[in-house]
Amino acid sequence: MHIFYTPDIASANYTLNEEESKHCSKVLRLGIGDVVQLIDGRGGFYEAEISAVSKKHVDLKVVSSQQEYGKRNHHLHIAVAPTKNIDRLEWFLEKATEIGIDEITPIICDRSERRIVKEERLDKVITSAVKQSLTAYHPLLNPAMALTDFLKKETSANKLIAHCMDGDKAYAKDLVQPHQSYVVLIGPEGDFTAAELELALQTGYKPVTLGQTRLRTETAALYACFELNYINR
Amino acid sequence: MHIFYTPDIASANYTLNEEESKHCSKVLRLGIGDVVQLIDGRGGFYEAEISAVSKKHVDLKVVSSQQEYGKRNHHLHIAVAPTKNIDRLEWFLEKATEIGIDEITPIICDRSERRIVKEERLDKVITSAVKQSLTAYHPLLNPAMALTDFLKKETSANKLIAHCMDGDKAYAKDLVQPHQSYVVLIGPEGDFTAAELELALQTGYKPVTLGQTRLRTETAALYACFELNYINR
Repeated sequence: MHIFYTPDIASANYTLNEEESKHCSKVLRLGIGDVVQLIDGRGGFYEAEISAVSKKHVDLKVVSSQQEYGKRNHHLHIAVAPTKNIDRLEWFLEKATEIGIDEITPIICDRSERRIVKEERLDKVITSAVKQSLTAYHPLLNPAMALTDFLKKETSANKLIAHCMDGDKAYAKDLVQPHQSYVVLIGPEGDFTAAELELALQTGYKPVTLGQTRLRTETAALYACFELNYINR
Repeated sequence: MHIFYTPDIASANYTLNEEESKHCSKVLRLGIGDVVQLIDGRGGFYEAEISAVSKKHVDLKVVSSQQEYGKRNHHLHIAVAPTKNIDRLEWFLEKATEIGIDEITPIICDRSERRIVKEERLDKVITSAVKQSLTAYHPLLNPAMALTDFLKKETSANKLIAHCMDGDKAYAKDLVQPHQSYVVLIGPEGDFTAAELELALQTGYKPVTLGQTRLRTETAALYACFELNYINR
């Protein structure tokens, strides 16, 4: 069935915006009486029937709704340095949304070759994955910020940092309990600097290992996403 | 340090082929006395010193070598339907090589929109990931084959199938023991047909669940790769 993302749905009657309306009536060729699925990104999942179709508008009438659809049992926040090739970050966002993530923050580090990201474009990648994977909760993409500023933020979450330098590291399952909040730091190509790592450790981040192999930035971020979801199954 | 893939290395002296030689001397600007790393794809990891540089050849002298470098403690074979957009399969091959996989077979299913794959190109993606992630074992990419033929192959591996249809499913950790051989079937966009699933079940494949969310073909394949590696840590 066709899915539409309707973050502003507020009642049993909803009108698709012009772009979605044209997609619905012209591209999908749907008409009065056809049923579509709606997700609001806040856990709401709806089935709605097309009640009217005009040139620029498609009116929908909700016929059934569920709240907290596919509610997650933990909160996972991954703060990852944007990759030099932005496709790799976009790929991570798509896959993490499919597997399960709640919050993402692009962090700019000393060795970040990319220091600017277009959040609007990245958010579209997430929304598209939300629809594709029928995830009623839309992951939150925060504006990019400097790692040093990110480390200053107060949080009650379990703090983990994945780095490639020597030193004691443990598996996530041995560092955290299930059903909690987690924030995981993933560095840029070339890793965090020793000074950045030291600062993170002083702020309470614990070094985590993601296995024995050398992973690219976006692979490490997805690996962390896999593992925290696995621990919470 | 720079890494070269040298599957045919047989002694302490090795000469890079013309393409690699030009890359080494012209692009990387390496010269006599410089040290490079070599992996043979069969577990051999070497450090070698450049002993001579000519127009088309770079001669290397091995100064140290390790066998069974990063040897894996299990054998993971993923048989996956090639995605309609081949980039997605290539992405899976790159990521699976980074995380850890031994064998891949593209399987052509009833609902496969893509029925032909260029193994040579896909193998280059794997080789590139092998070098990037410093994996001394090169995963084996088998020629594409029909699922029905694949199911006829004799194997002593644990057989798992991931599908989206209803029915009893279990987590991989509850279906297999560590340190064994595994083969996991991942279907095409649109899933296996009921007849294909039935045939796989008759052949001894056990239905496995990859979590609660709806995953794309290549995401499901990588998820299975992550999980079997996790079970074997």
